[in-house]
Amino acid sequence: MKVCIVGCGAIGSLFAAHLATLADVEVWAYDLDQAHVDAINAGGLRLSGKSTLHSRPKASSDPAAIPPCDFGIVATKSLHTRPAMAATAAVFRNGAVCSVQNGVGNEEIIAEYAPRVMRGTTFPAGRIVAPGHVQQDTGGKTWIGPFEPKPASMAEVTALAEKLTQSGMETLAMEDARGAQWTKLIFNAATNPIGALTGLPHGVACDQPRVRALISGLAAEGVAVAKALGITPDSDPEKLIDHAREVAYLHKASMLQDALAHRRTEIAALNGGIVQFGEQTGVPTPLNRAIWALIEGMEHSWTRKD
Amino acid sequence: MKVCIVGCGAIGSLFAAHLATLADVEVWAYDLDQAHVDAINAGGLRLSGKSTLHSRPKASSDPAAIPPCDFGIVATKSLHTRPAMAATAAVFRNGAVCSVQNGVGNEEIIAEYAPRVMRGTTFPAGRIVAPGHVQQDTGGKTWIGPFEPKPASMAEVTALAEKLTQSGMETLAMEDARGAQWTKLIFNAATNPIGALTGLPHGVACDQPRVRALISGLAAEGVAVAKALGITPDSDPEKLIDHAREVAYLHKASMLQDALAHRRTEIAALNGGIVQFGEQTGVPTPLNRAIWALIEGMEHSWTRKD
Repeated sequence: MKVCIVGCGAIGSLFAAHLATLADVEVWAYDLDQAHVDAINAGGLRLSGKSTLHSRPKASSDPAAIPPCDFGIVATKSLHTRPAMAATAAVFRNGAVCSVQNGVGNEEIIAEYAPRVMRGTTFPAGRIVAPGHVQQDTGGKTWIGPFEPKPASMAEVTALAEKLTQSGMETLAMEDARGAQWTKLIFNAATNPIGALTGLPHGVACDQPRVRALISGLAAEGVAVAKALGITPDSDPEKLIDHAREVAYLHKASMLQDALAHRRTEIAALNGGIVQFGEQTGVPTPLNRAIWALIEGMEHSWTRKD
Repeated sequence: MKVCIVGCGAIGSLFAAHLATLADVEVWAYDLDQAHVDAINAGGLRLSGKSTLHSRPKASSDPAAIPPCDFGIVATKSLHTRPAMAATAAVFRNGAVCSVQNGVGNEEIIAEYAPRVMRGTTFPAGRIVAPGHVQQDTGGKTWIGPFEPKPASMAEVTALAEKLTQSGMETLAMEDARGAQWTKLIFNAATNPIGALTGLPHGVACDQPRVRALISGLAAEGVAVAKALGITPDSDPEKLIDHAREVAYLHKASMLQDALAHRRTEIAALNGGIVQFGEQTGVPTPLNRAIWALIEGMEHSWTRKD
């Protein structure tokens, strides 16, 4: 089996490093960070933290150097889905490509470039500490399933899930992975931008009654849109929000970290995704729309030239 | 006529300095900024910018040093209305007290301490450049009228308006000053916190379509609450928003300046005021409520000790 990881940042590296421990999987990593690519090719890819391992995927920033692959795992930021897929389309001429990205809307873009697509949701998180070295901060499962309009076969879904699980990343093959995806989407959209706009860690934000009510309002809109789409979230977002308050009281949401570093966020695939699917289904999403506007405005303030 | 200005910051200083040019008005300024008080008593109060004048109000940080006054003009930040009125109540034992503050809800507090109350709205703005010296940045009118539940007489309203106008601050005596007050309230609530949350100057924010739509959504909620209260805004807030885009494209809203300096804002009297009057009248205000939560959360991030 040949697998190409598209976008070998923190998340992509977790997938690449794990899969490359298997003797019967040839792993390629496509990434534009040349220092990271060179370090992987020179000394392999090292994980520390929740996973400790060292493996040797092949890496390239040149799609022409990558052979046709059976599977793709797309792990770019959602902002980069289109250019990354446009660049690597030939690699997946006859492949099945799975998104493990945040938000919604990525599979639709992937389907423009790949013949068969899977939607996926992954919980492990980490960060690149140096070229060729990724720290895994949190563990958790991955859920994958056919993307309905242009589906990979369940045989493909199951084959990829088995290899991932065998490599140490527990992955569930689902007939319908939308519930898992929307659960994470709704949680992220209700909490991440609140951290970015207020500067508050998740638990501290939850303890401000007016802020907590806003988080619940955002989540309720997401649940209503999911329901209109015929999707039942895997878990009650309110419970996830309270659970995260318990286990990650002082955690700064990734979007808050992005805001502090003036990095563009994934707001368009999170709250923007809820708004767009809300429009399609006639479900009003005024709060998610407001938050999308505010984060987009904040991003503009970092780069404006006037 | 004896007048006491309660809160002699930038706005209070404009009123104090102008009124003190009149021979027949004795002006007192109550303020807790001892350096400003001492400078006023030593060398008088100087205005530059849109107004250029030098006059000699009396100033004190000790309410017991201030004689009973016929009129009060309250110009504190809305956060400080209650402590300032509690401290100076004896000064206004038989006086008529007028708010020229931002937001709504100040008159209700003043009415707990003073026998007769006026609501007011003022457009001039400025900043303290040094103790005893205020720069007036913008001109504009002031509107005052009886506060309905505990009104000053129209004779008092007219007398104060005439003295202010005579001193160079054009002031209109109105039977109903609520339209003017809500016009400014709705404009401020729709624009000020957007600047604070995004970091964008007003005109730049207006040119972001999603942000502009949010500004309109906030204003529409404010208009709906005003209507439910039987108040007709003086001007269409949408026109004011567009006008401000033309004349103050790169202006950083005062709340953005507060946010950059980590100063507590007047959000509770602005968007919070619209939410509270919305609750009283059964008008939903989800966007103003969301903005109130976000600014309150942001303020908490500046002071939290966890």
